[in-house]
Amino acid sequence: MTGDGTAGPGRPEAGGGYAGVRAAVVGTGLIGGSVLLRLRDAGLDVTGWDPDPATREHARRQWVTAPETVEEAVAGRDVVFLCGPLPTLPATLPLVAAASPPGCVLTDVGSTKAEVAAAAARHGLLDRFVPGHPMAGAESAGLTAAAPTLLDGAAWVLCPAAGPATGAFRWLTGLLLEVFRARVVPMAAAAHDTAAALASHVPHLLAGALAGAVRRATLRDAVLALAAGSFRDGTRVAGTPAVRTANMLLGNRERVLRELAGVTAYLDELADALRSGDAERLTALHAEAGAARELLSGRAYATRVRDFPASGDHADEVAWLRELGAAGGHLGGCHVRADRVAYTAHVPDPPGPRQAAD
Amino acid sequence: MTGDGTAGPGRPEAGGGYAGVRAAVVGTGLIGGSVLLRLRDAGLDVTGWDPDPATREHARRQWVTAPETVEEAVAGRDVVFLCGPLPTLPATLPLVAAASPPGCVLTDVGSTKAEVAAAAARHGLLDRFVPGHPMAGAESAGLTAAAPTLLDGAAWVLCPAAGPATGAFRWLTGLLLEVFRARVVPMAAAAHDTAAALASHVPHLLAGALAGAVRRATLRDAVLALAAGSFRDGTRVAGTPAVRTANMLLGNRERVLRELAGVTAYLDELADALRSGDAERLTALHAEAGAARELLSGRAYATRVRDFPASGDHADEVAWLRELGAAGGHLGGCHVRADRVAYTAHVPDPPGPRQAAD
Repeated sequence: MTGDGTAGPGRPEAGGGYAGVRAAVVGTGLIGGSVLLRLRDAGLDVTGWDPDPATREHARRQWVTAPETVEEAVAGRDVVFLCGPLPTLPATLPLVAAASPPGCVLTDVGSTKAEVAAAAARHGLLDRFVPGHPMAGAESAGLTAAAPTLLDGAAWVLCPAAGPATGAFRWLTGLLLEVFRARVVPMAAAAHDTAAALASHVPHLLAGALAGAVRRATLRDAVLALAAGSFRDGTRVAGTPAVRTANMLLGNRERVLRELAGVTAYLDELADALRSGDAERLTALHAEAGAARELLSGRAYATRVRDFPASGDHADEVAWLRELGAAGGHLGGCHVRADRVAYTAHVPDPPGPRQAAD
Repeated sequence: MTGDGTAGPGRPEAGGGYAGVRAAVVGTGLIGGSVLLRLRDAGLDVTGWDPDPATREHARRQWVTAPETVEEAVAGRDVVFLCGPLPTLPATLPLVAAASPPGCVLTDVGSTKAEVAAAAARHGLLDRFVPGHPMAGAESAGLTAAAPTLLDGAAWVLCPAAGPATGAFRWLTGLLLEVFRARVVPMAAAAHDTAAALASHVPHLLAGALAGAVRRATLRDAVLALAAGSFRDGTRVAGTPAVRTANMLLGNRERVLRELAGVTAYLDELADALRSGDAERLTALHAEAGAARELLSGRAYATRVRDFPASGDHADEVAWLRELGAAGGHLGGCHVRADRVAYTAHVPDPPGPRQAAD
């Protein structure tokens, strides 16, 4: 167990394996359905709920318990994954909190974290709500598109908080590492939202702008006929359901607009170099961009082990965790033994500009 | 044969198969090397030349004749593929024309067509130079990355011209259909360059801007740690060698800047809707973009057969061919029989906005 008394009476011990843990998934679409199927395959006792009766019926055909009400689905659970659409979370959160046991860990999979974290604070749920975001997705939607392997090995952001919430964070980290083989990225909610703006939200805007402009182009059909790798890749997420994309962008509006300004500034530099025929500058700007792209595939990691007191206010632990995620690192292990918690961390090696001159 | 007297004395007949045709590839990098290996595998008599002695040596180890000089490589050939870097083409073209037989068909694989077509006109080579552009590529470079299957089934633009050039166009079309199973897209050089600006060149700018902005971001390492599908896809071509990207953009400068303006206008609309919190407008703009993306994967084609007199000024034939490509269609067959040339064309069905209200 996490050793700090935040777990509910029924929550099994961390490190002792998560088989038999009682989990619920609320909202069994693409992501929620994939979470559900994975938990089921790992031997957890799972229930699923979705507002759509046909989806609940489909879940039952997958040998998953799918009660008629969300209250039944989360009653007596050790952990609940909130996987409904982003705008529904602030309302679902207190409802699920009220219907689940007081020690039940709550988490979500929404693409922005600051707003839902604020909602959790308003409802006094910071001791057991751990904001989460698995970095995976597809253009498809619905339980029929879900797969137990969709999130395997994914980067999965969890937002640790000091105080009793740290225990819930440690326990959930252990579950994600064991069941999903996740790379758990600990981040502050605000840092996540800024990073996600560049890693996901702005790319959706660029894909939409490119595909949208082509739709309006006189030579639209010729453009589509000539579309090879760069256009196909650059517009793939334009195939994402439009409502989902709009919700994601609106949920992180200020940060998306700020990071978009950085991207359009770089685009302006490229266009200026092109307009003035400055081959050297144009090449240098593309080479700089290529270096970032290379880091994506060729990154090396060093492994570090760090431990903290299992009890106390956890302030040092949380600060270290947030710094780890901001530096591009992730957790590969979390073990509570007696009065210590030990983390295994993987950090970029060589370190990025936050640790060293670049 | 094409039946209009433009073929050189040694060029084998169209329709009789292309095995035994004498072909040369000048510039055996990624694209040229792939062309060369494919032609060799199809039973053509091929020679290759590259300015780099190590590349010539590598070609010889692939059982390809690779003479020391470009003049030797193209002497006595029926067709020469010019596959060197874009800025070298205007100089290479007259040199290869002088060293090859007068009836030898010349073509290139450069990513822009208007400039090289103008160079061919200046050198009086319009009767046998057919501007070409296979729509394929990769982030890699060099003969070692080349593969005989790289261009299999690719969209391959050829620019037909009236007069004696039509014969060279027909013959080369037959070769590409037979040897590469290409979808030959006939287009005017200017229309190609406008369509390619949106299908390829602007996507390279967007990928560069996104990757470049991330490289400069404070949370760079966290962004890379979170990068899932949308960022990976959206920056893939930022890994292309920077000099090659710069050459491609500079070779089509005016059109790239014009089409980029259309994309940034759409991006501004998206940003405005986001800034004002207009969920309906933001969703509608993304849905419009998604419709273009859907056309990319779900397009149906109707087959049409059309024939023209084999001789004459070919003005109707060339006009029909250019309209076919502008409408998103491609050729699947080209046969010269007695005094007629018959094309099999595949056209989008239902047609796009050029043929019908959209």
